Amino acid sequence: MRTLKFTLQYDGTDFVGWQRQAAGVSIQGLLEGALERFEGAPVTVHGAGRTDAGVHALGQVASAILTAAIDTPTLARALNAILPPAVRVMAIEEMADAFHARFSASGKVYEYRIVNAPIVSPFLQRYAWHVIPPLDLDAMRAGAAALVGAHDFAAFQGSGSAVATTERVVRAIEWEDGGGYDLPVVVRIAGDGFLRHMVRNIVGTLVDVGFGRWTPARVGAILASRDRAQAGPTAPPQGLFLVRVLY
Amino acid sequence: MRTLKFTLQYDGTDFVGWQRQAAGVSIQGLLEGALERFEGAPVTVHGAGRTDAGVHALGQVASAILTAAIDTPTLARALNAILPPAVRVMAIEEMADAFHARFSASGKVYEYRIVNAPIVSPFLQRYAWHVIPPLDLDAMRAGAAALVGAHDFAAFQGSGSAVATTERVVRAIEWEDGGGYDLPVVVRIAGDGFLRHMVRNIVGTLVDVGFGRWTPARVGAILASRDRAQAGPTAPPQGLFLVRVLY
Repeated sequence: MRTLKFTLQYDGTDFVGWQRQAAGVSIQGLLEGALERFEGAPVTVHGAGRTDAGVHALGQVASAILTAAIDTPTLARALNAILPPAVRVMAIEEMADAFHARFSASGKVYEYRIVNAPIVSPFLQRYAWHVIPPLDLDAMRAGAAALVGAHDFAAFQGSGSAVATTERVVRAIEWEDGGGYDLPVVVRIAGDGFLRHMVRNIVGTLVDVGFGRWTPARVGAILASRDRAQAGPTAPPQGLFLVRVLY
Repeated sequence: MRTLKFTLQYDGTDFVGWQRQAAGVSIQGLLEGALERFEGAPVTVHGAGRTDAGVHALGQVASAILTAAIDTPTLARALNAILPPAVRVMAIEEMADAFHARFSASGKVYEYRIVNAPIVSPFLQRYAWHVIPPLDLDAMRAGAAALVGAHDFAAFQGSGSAVATTERVVRAIEWEDGGGYDLPVVVRIAGDGFLRHMVRNIVGTLVDVGFGRWTPARVGAILASRDRAQAGPTAPPQGLFLVRVLY
């Protein structure tokens, strides 16, 4: 019995998300199905985070317990031969028994990409939110500053969640300015944990600030309200990347 | 009557190539179909180069003569509303009557992208050639140097072409080294004109040099032979981008 850590990349465009569902193809389901071939029995895979339909991963992490005697580089090659090209196992590591992709994680880094130009490149349309009116990035940056630190992020939580607490720590929010259709604006958010739709709701709110609909100061007020109805819309999934899981 | 210059980007994955064909969706066919809606009559569009099925464009140029009275920014927006997201009109300019996308062109720049790593990222698999054995980039660079200048490139011409001359001028071949699955090796080739499959045949030959199958000096010998059978295989289409057309 070995506990294995899988580092995965995937293009989420054509999947129902990380999590196994009654209908549709999920990343978790694909990986479990591929591992079952080597194990000869059902395998449960735990993901560090449940990326939604259309959300991408540059560094999702999953864990599973396997008995099959197969060395990890061979297993990685074999899994990649079975999985569709949109899902790749980038690395497999043998871990201590106690390792669990979700419960052992100490934080995550997400990136959200926005093309702020009249036209979006065909090479970015699946990987960014296309926002046409010019965004005031300085205002967005100023608004975002209110979110860094330990806060109750209930105002940015998607509906239908059931979590023990809506307090989370956002460690840093970084920006890359982009430069039109071929270089998107990148918002990089690192934190100890994230509520459902939290990054997309933050980005949707910051874009409303970028449009000048709200002042930067409004972001702190929205946070303090703990009321989802006060925040902006949920940014679309295709701009979101799970970049890295921290342990 | 106005002669218009269209600058286009497209993801070539799902198309039969630039040129209109009996079966399948072509970029030329899509653009002609969209323009016909404004013109109320068939429109012929001339492309600067005929990219093959699966080949991409960051800066393809096309020209067409239109009588419809519509300003160019409005036309660009309207065309992008009709065209699939994989094809974008990035700019439209009004030109002198004599302008012709193909005959007025003085040169072209192509890029070919190679992921030289055990695993290719899901985000690059449609946009690069995945080559697993480590390539000797210094040897490839040395071999490529023999191709710069005015030469008879018959050895690198795809079969089934009928051209007046196989002499072309390659102005420069530049390299970006890449860095594994997320940063491809980029070979940038600028020239006054290119034969059918010329860039892909050059890249296929250079990759054989990178494998150590051939010495760098062999590239000059292949060029001098003017014999297609001497050169390496045709690199696959998905790594090739038409970057820019020079006028």
